[in-house]
Amino acid sequence: MRPIVVLPPPVCLSVINCVTFPIPNVTPDQAEQQLLKPNEWSYCDYFWTDKKDPQGTTSVAGFEVLLQKQLKGKQMQKEMAEFIRERIKIEEEYAKNLSKLSQSPLAAQEEGTLGEAWAQLKRSCHDEAEVHLKFSNKLQCEVEKPLLTFRDNFKKELKKYDHHIIDLRKQLASRFAGVEKARKALADRQKDLEVKTQQLDIKHMNKHEEDIKKARRKSTQAGDDLMHNVDLYNRAQSKWFEEMVTTSLELERLEVERVEMIRQNLRQYTTLRHETDMFNQSTVEPVDQLLQSVDPARDRELWVREHKTGELRPVDMDI
Amino acid sequence: MRPIVVLPPPVCLSVINCVTFPIPNVTPDQAEQQLLKPNEWSYCDYFWTDKKDPQGTTSVAGFEVLLQKQLKGKQMQKEMAEFIRERIKIEEEYAKNLSKLSQSPLAAQEEGTLGEAWAQLKRSCHDEAEVHLKFSNKLQCEVEKPLLTFRDNFKKELKKYDHHIIDLRKQLASRFAGVEKARKALADRQKDLEVKTQQLDIKHMNKHEEDIKKARRKSTQAGDDLMHNVDLYNRAQSKWFEEMVTTSLELERLEVERVEMIRQNLRQYTTLRHETDMFNQSTVEPVDQLLQSVDPARDRELWVREHKTGELRPVDMDI
Repeated sequence: MRPIVVLPPPVCLSVINCVTFPIPNVTPDQAEQQLLKPNEWSYCDYFWTDKKDPQGTTSVAGFEVLLQKQLKGKQMQKEMAEFIRERIKIEEEYAKNLSKLSQSPLAAQEEGTLGEAWAQLKRSCHDEAEVHLKFSNKLQCEVEKPLLTFRDNFKKELKKYDHHIIDLRKQLASRFAGVEKARKALADRQKDLEVKTQQLDIKHMNKHEEDIKKARRKSTQAGDDLMHNVDLYNRAQSKWFEEMVTTSLELERLEVERVEMIRQNLRQYTTLRHETDMFNQSTVEPVDQLLQSVDPARDRELWVREHKTGELRPVDMDI
Repeated sequence: MRPIVVLPPPVCLSVINCVTFPIPNVTPDQAEQQLLKPNEWSYCDYFWTDKKDPQGTTSVAGFEVLLQKQLKGKQMQKEMAEFIRERIKIEEEYAKNLSKLSQSPLAAQEEGTLGEAWAQLKRSCHDEAEVHLKFSNKLQCEVEKPLLTFRDNFKKELKKYDHHIIDLRKQLASRFAGVEKARKALADRQKDLEVKTQQLDIKHMNKHEEDIKKARRKSTQAGDDLMHNVDLYNRAQSKWFEEMVTTSLELERLEVERVEMIRQNLRQYTTLRHETDMFNQSTVEPVDQLLQSVDPARDRELWVREHKTGELRPVDMDI
């Protein structure tokens, strides 16, 4: 006779949404888990458990938290591009106003060296406008556009990851249900065997032994079936585990890339700002030079040559 | 018997609006006139004659041309101040827009070292706004205001000069009329004397001689009277001449002062522009520093610490 296989339910593991976790200090033969990537605060180490929704009974998969982080990152990228767009509009407005001012006829009648310096001052406002317009154009090409277009199809990509992981969890849940079903079937079979074994029927001894043998066989089969289901479960969990590690590391890499991309673009912003201030400074130089050359005596000469009425001085009347 | 004084009309002088000028190469005893202030293109050398209005018969006194120049200068000063006012408005608008943008909530949810760099970038827009606001305030105090308030009461001053010179010209014209009147009276007396001298009246010899004597006396008196009027004229012309020299030199000095004042204020404008661009440059530095410190690994750590769901990794289901 084969020994009776009694399979206890898994009491040394905690089960959260069909995933089996060790219970620290309780589960036997469990060495303390080391982080897969120590000192790296890696995604693959910290998002195994589902997060319980504080207000209700629903929970969010750890992977879902990682995905939300990615979506938020995409949103941040978009909002930064919007901010740059607003800056571009402000620069264009400023440029437009300066350009218009530069065409003002105010004091256009000032002549000579002073008039030239004044005309250059007005012109410098137009030069400043050009500098700011150039700034806004470069902001658009070199900062806003890259921020807008980086990872255009990202949400689609993320959906793929999401669906894949969700499918693996579904399979896991399905296998877990299979284990539970097999466990229950085994329990039924064991109970049946026990009941039959304890009965004593002197009258129908042969049939009874037959019945016990049958019950024992079924019990053994149910035990095999349970082991098989547990094996299927563990394979499904492994598959999910591997995918979790792979995908979360990929998301981690993508996040590093995102941060670096943004940093680059914001550096480009500050570079353009530096550039702009320098170009702007240079618009003042021609004005300074002409102011240096302002010469009241020269201006008097120019004006007198043009407007003099007569050099001949009056003399006394003669008689 | 006294000699007959025959006074010819002044044929070697040209008279323009009651002012007597020499005729070059014609008027005797006239050395070539040297400029009062050679090589200086001084007002006192070039505005003696009245300027004829090309379209009509009216004319404008040379001094009037100088006065118009002064009024135009005052107008230029005012228009320059208006231009600066327009620049101030543009700067205030730009500052207002940048300040508003700096308070934008866009991408405020970005966290960690990247979030700090982003927050500083937004803050730098406010810093830029402050720089431009400071620029506009200084433009108002240090450029616009001086341009507006320089020689507040100038038009009144000019009116005084104007009226004084006009009065002297009126006196001159009046004295000139006096000379013309005396000249005519002399001519009449001379004619009378001639007529009487040519008459022969044997019948009334004594009375006739008496008449001739009387006519001769009147003629002499008329001659003295003419000389006296010419003397009065010449004194009036001298007075006007001196005032012309003094006042035109004063206007010349005022114009030099005006040009220098404007040059100073426009230099202040360029100084403020330089300053502003430099201050503006410095608003970017904190952003650069924080961008330098962006650390994706650090940001991951911060985020994972806050959002992790669980470090315990799943294990196989046991049987």
